[in-house]
Amino acid sequence: MIRIVLDCMGGDNSPKAHVEGAILASKENKDLYIILVGKSKEILRELSKYEFDKNKINIVDAEDIIYSYDEPVKSIRSKKRSSLVVALNELIDKDYDGIVSTGNSGAFLVGCLFTVGKIKGVFRPALAPIIDRENGRFILLDSGANVDCDVKNIVQFADLGRLYYEILFKKDNPTVKLLNIGTEKNKGNSVIRKAYDQLMNDPNINFKGNLEARDIFKDDTNVVVCDGFIGNIALKIMEGTSKHIISLAIKDISKNFLYKIVEKIVPSFLNRVKGKYDYKKYGGAVFLGVKKVCVKSHGNSNEITIKNSINTAFKLVNEKIISSIEKLYL
Amino acid sequence: MIRIVLDCMGGDNSPKAHVEGAILASKENKDLYIILVGKSKEILRELSKYEFDKNKINIVDAEDIIYSYDEPVKSIRSKKRSSLVVALNELIDKDYDGIVSTGNSGAFLVGCLFTVGKIKGVFRPALAPIIDRENGRFILLDSGANVDCDVKNIVQFADLGRLYYEILFKKDNPTVKLLNIGTEKNKGNSVIRKAYDQLMNDPNINFKGNLEARDIFKDDTNVVVCDGFIGNIALKIMEGTSKHIISLAIKDISKNFLYKIVEKIVPSFLNRVKGKYDYKKYGGAVFLGVKKVCVKSHGNSNEITIKNSINTAFKLVNEKIISSIEKLYL
Repeated sequence: MIRIVLDCMGGDNSPKAHVEGAILASKENKDLYIILVGKSKEILRELSKYEFDKNKINIVDAEDIIYSYDEPVKSIRSKKRSSLVVALNELIDKDYDGIVSTGNSGAFLVGCLFTVGKIKGVFRPALAPIIDRENGRFILLDSGANVDCDVKNIVQFADLGRLYYEILFKKDNPTVKLLNIGTEKNKGNSVIRKAYDQLMNDPNINFKGNLEARDIFKDDTNVVVCDGFIGNIALKIMEGTSKHIISLAIKDISKNFLYKIVEKIVPSFLNRVKGKYDYKKYGGAVFLGVKKVCVKSHGNSNEITIKNSINTAFKLVNEKIISSIEKLYL
Repeated sequence: MIRIVLDCMGGDNSPKAHVEGAILASKENKDLYIILVGKSKEILRELSKYEFDKNKINIVDAEDIIYSYDEPVKSIRSKKRSSLVVALNELIDKDYDGIVSTGNSGAFLVGCLFTVGKIKGVFRPALAPIIDRENGRFILLDSGANVDCDVKNIVQFADLGRLYYEILFKKDNPTVKLLNIGTEKNKGNSVIRKAYDQLMNDPNINFKGNLEARDIFKDDTNVVVCDGFIGNIALKIMEGTSKHIISLAIKDISKNFLYKIVEKIVPSFLNRVKGKYDYKKYGGAVFLGVKKVCVKSHGNSNEITIKNSINTAFKLVNEKIISSIEKLYL
């Protein structure tokens, strides 16, 4: 039995979407046991709406919440009865297999580092969301866990990322590129240029050189590697630009005299494009390099996203990603 | 008379769009003299299509071209008869006022640094494109001239940027923010956090704190400041994301049974959105901090973009931006 702790509070749709997502995931995976953590009265009220196997879903009460505006380190230290801190303690005390949370990202990362701890040999764990593009998807890491990265961090992100991609998508020898301002060998800042040289000589990495940022949705690389500050900026610029373009589209189309007809079509387009950067399809960004499977799902996750995040955690536990990472650094 | 050198080669539409753009700019500005540099036969052939005042447009022959794939430093050194090198030499030898080019960006920046030189007191000149958003526009600097920036560079970009915005858009005390991964004071990497503290205490800068990257098109800040590596990544992610979303739109809409009707509407939308990151409206990214007005126009500039780039250069010369920057560091 694989046991996943679900932090049910601190998301936009807490705990309704979490309970429904857990029910859905539970039905898809026979060997899954889910521990719902949060305000037990609210969770029970939601649970009462469904039929489910009571041996496979449990509740642990936590009356407090870490909100998105709370300061990460301070709230992890002071809010001992928050759903996130209680969920992390359950994970460690009961030796469960993984955790999924939709709460405060900074607090989640800090909490995982403090409570779960790094795998031996990992310099700095990295956050690795999966991003859709027309011809498939790629993972981008680090996308925000580390704001000051040196060469050895970047090189290790490549190794963690390719292992993760191999396991999650069952692809041998996935391709890796560095996020950069051009494709030529000598492009980039001093850290990236040194990382390029090291990756070129690394026999474990199927390194394909630099990826120019403007081609990020056209390229077919599996793993895109960068400093966490730059990865987070890139992710947020994708989100902001996508919303901006959609907003322009709506304004432009609504000005047109054929609007009434177009109106019927546009929602389907918008629904498709929306959520492209919400990790909806694959479910969550994995925090790679800590001793348990830790998945951060977007704050506005709905029941499908949460189901997918639980499924991702389940799959990574099932495929023994933690011991695979441990073996890299024996 | 304000005298602007126009490098007519090395762009996607060379020299046709350049000649037409020059003719258009010449008609808009009485006191403008333009020196067209490039393959004189081709330029003459294009010029012969128009009526114009022969005292206001001149040609200087240059038979070679620096292409977009040429290595910047090497090509500036070795291609002495390229349109860019000849144009830069004309600028300095004849003490003209400014230059506009659509050619190889790296070669343009290197050429301006080598041939024109930095203004005394400027640590590193920065590239500053103007980017449209729904409620106006902002300038983003440095957007690619410097891949390794320290705190004093970032702080100076803020000062150069606000002066540029003041002069170009006649706005007193423009607002400045740092591009960052969150709005809180302690966000960002070590360089950005230190720059934050210095900018907060700088009496010349109307500093408004951090701009979270996802809000870049929603915010109303005038000047957005960042390291050149990050700025270039941000700019290219905007371009890539925008193309990706438009491509999704086209695919989605074309699948719909009402496609034939929508087809009539969509082109206007696409035409509007396309070029949003091509500097079409304002014309070019200014290379701020060198001793002449140097404007880099996008490689795919059409005649309107080139006209606008010439007009931007004209305006900046007319408003004496170079002596204003010199006064900052007396």
